[in-house]
Amino acid sequence: MNPLDLIAKRAYPYETEKRDKTYLALNENPFPFPEDLVDEVFRRLNSDALRIYYDSPDEELIEKILSYLDTDFLSKNNVSVGNGADEIIYVMMLMFDRSVFFPPTYSCYRIFAKAVGAKFLEVPLTKDLRIPEVNVGEGDVVFIPNPNNPTGHVFEREEIERILKTGAFVALDEAYYEFHGESYVDFLKKYENLAVIRTFSKAFSLAAQRVGYVVASEKFIDAYNRVRLPFNVSYVSQMFAKVALDHREIFEERTKFIVEERERMKSALREMGYRITDSRGNFVFVFMEKEEKERLLEHLRTKNVAVRSFREGVRITIGKREENDMILRELEVFK
Amino acid sequence: MNPLDLIAKRAYPYETEKRDKTYLALNENPFPFPEDLVDEVFRRLNSDALRIYYDSPDEELIEKILSYLDTDFLSKNNVSVGNGADEIIYVMMLMFDRSVFFPPTYSCYRIFAKAVGAKFLEVPLTKDLRIPEVNVGEGDVVFIPNPNNPTGHVFEREEIERILKTGAFVALDEAYYEFHGESYVDFLKKYENLAVIRTFSKAFSLAAQRVGYVVASEKFIDAYNRVRLPFNVSYVSQMFAKVALDHREIFEERTKFIVEERERMKSALREMGYRITDSRGNFVFVFMEKEEKERLLEHLRTKNVAVRSFREGVRITIGKREENDMILRELEVFK
Repeated sequence: MNPLDLIAKRAYPYETEKRDKTYLALNENPFPFPEDLVDEVFRRLNSDALRIYYDSPDEELIEKILSYLDTDFLSKNNVSVGNGADEIIYVMMLMFDRSVFFPPTYSCYRIFAKAVGAKFLEVPLTKDLRIPEVNVGEGDVVFIPNPNNPTGHVFEREEIERILKTGAFVALDEAYYEFHGESYVDFLKKYENLAVIRTFSKAFSLAAQRVGYVVASEKFIDAYNRVRLPFNVSYVSQMFAKVALDHREIFEERTKFIVEERERMKSALREMGYRITDSRGNFVFVFMEKEEKERLLEHLRTKNVAVRSFREGVRITIGKREENDMILRELEVFK
Repeated sequence: MNPLDLIAKRAYPYETEKRDKTYLALNENPFPFPEDLVDEVFRRLNSDALRIYYDSPDEELIEKILSYLDTDFLSKNNVSVGNGADEIIYVMMLMFDRSVFFPPTYSCYRIFAKAVGAKFLEVPLTKDLRIPEVNVGEGDVVFIPNPNNPTGHVFEREEIERILKTGAFVALDEAYYEFHGESYVDFLKKYENLAVIRTFSKAFSLAAQRVGYVVASEKFIDAYNRVRLPFNVSYVSQMFAKVALDHREIFEERTKFIVEERERMKSALREMGYRITDSRGNFVFVFMEKEEKERLLEHLRTKNVAVRSFREGVRITIGKREENDMILRELEVFK
């Protein structure tokens, strides 16, 4: 079969989303990247660097990431970057023989696996959202978002360690780390078959600039750097990430607000009688049967509001205070 | 074998290059991206867009690329973008069954094929740098830079058409189009199995911002968009590309200078007795035997100058006037 026909059959079509509404569907940060920091990015630019093939990552960004990680067991050869955390996931699917993930999970795992034609295995989480018993080993890469997406719940250390002990490689996707406040990066002291993936898209309001980073053994980072595009993150995007880390207290303040709003919404939703998860991300997750869910989505559509639908329910991104108030009112009315 | 060991055996290591010298080795534009255009990029930014997953490409960039292409047979569904032209090449290697290319050619074809573990076939150009007879067909993608890299010479239309007629898919890499002034994009009126790849890295002094674009049939673009990363080019990089196209006369002026310098160097090198190609890129190519080449490279190293070595000779990027004068002096002394 013609390769283009094969791809059209195998892979999801590329789609863009209309933004002419209250958009709480992609877990974006409600706060814009601060204007004065945009000014600082442009002040710090050396416009003569724009014409060259600029190292990706540059040493300064690696140092700032290392200091942000604040560990005593990592060095510059334990860190690399991606064109968003998405590229790191995408490349890891090319690096290993088979990708394994546990729905409900990050939807791009399936999208990227089908895009690149990677072998993959999906084994649903257990009824109480635990990592299932699964037959994995060397050659497999197991993608585990923690906190999980779309449910936001957190996996216990023992669950992660059970998979690590099988010898399979674990991609621990900590995209929502900042909204949880706890990381399992310390597992790297004990396990070589682990990569921790982080992003500037969520807590640092930089989704449009596509900067993710990965922390792992020197052996993994060397292999990852061989397989990825050599110049994968632009000069200006790296500068945005550096300026963000230099002013992390601004983003920590905002993260505090988002976490408070999340907890406010969780208790309000519980009081209304909704079944929700103990989300630790920048979103809440409401379990809903299909029929009720379709009615809610339709109700929200009439209010020009977009949230994200999953088989098990709906995920609602934490927005600005007034957006969260509006969502609570609508869910009260709907109830 | 452990996938990481397999990659370390199969793929080239990631390397960065020290820039503490006159650097004429990566075909970068000698002119910096204009400061006032950097200001214009920054003025046109909507800082609230930085927090969202920004469409890649956005419609405005596609329209500006279409108007730059200036054809009457292409529409917005015939164009997409890449994280540099490199990502387009990289993704095409994932889309097709086998990659074929004709050394001496763009070194990243081989690097990316080995990085992603793609099947590939290398058939050297003929003695007089023509496309060889080669057995290719559906399922194959044939990468042809035109003007060629590193030799800079141009392939005749008939040579390209011979490959198109086999049914193999042709990736016509026109990264140096602006320095040649002629394109074979019109082949798209006649052939579906063709993609023309362009870049903002060379003529537009934006190598650090990673923006390439591809022009092809709607069917190809649909398949490419399914396989690539959905958010592959950042918001700010797209703005740099838009501002560059809005002020293309500045870059056309610079390209004129670079082409004049190239022709000046070609005649001077011929007069010195060097065997060179009729390069149409932003570089010259000097044929040299191994032993003489090593001596020249050593000589240039003592002068803190970096050029690019190939089996057949050396490629020297056209730099600023004083850099070109210095290179001519050193090649005269060396002769």
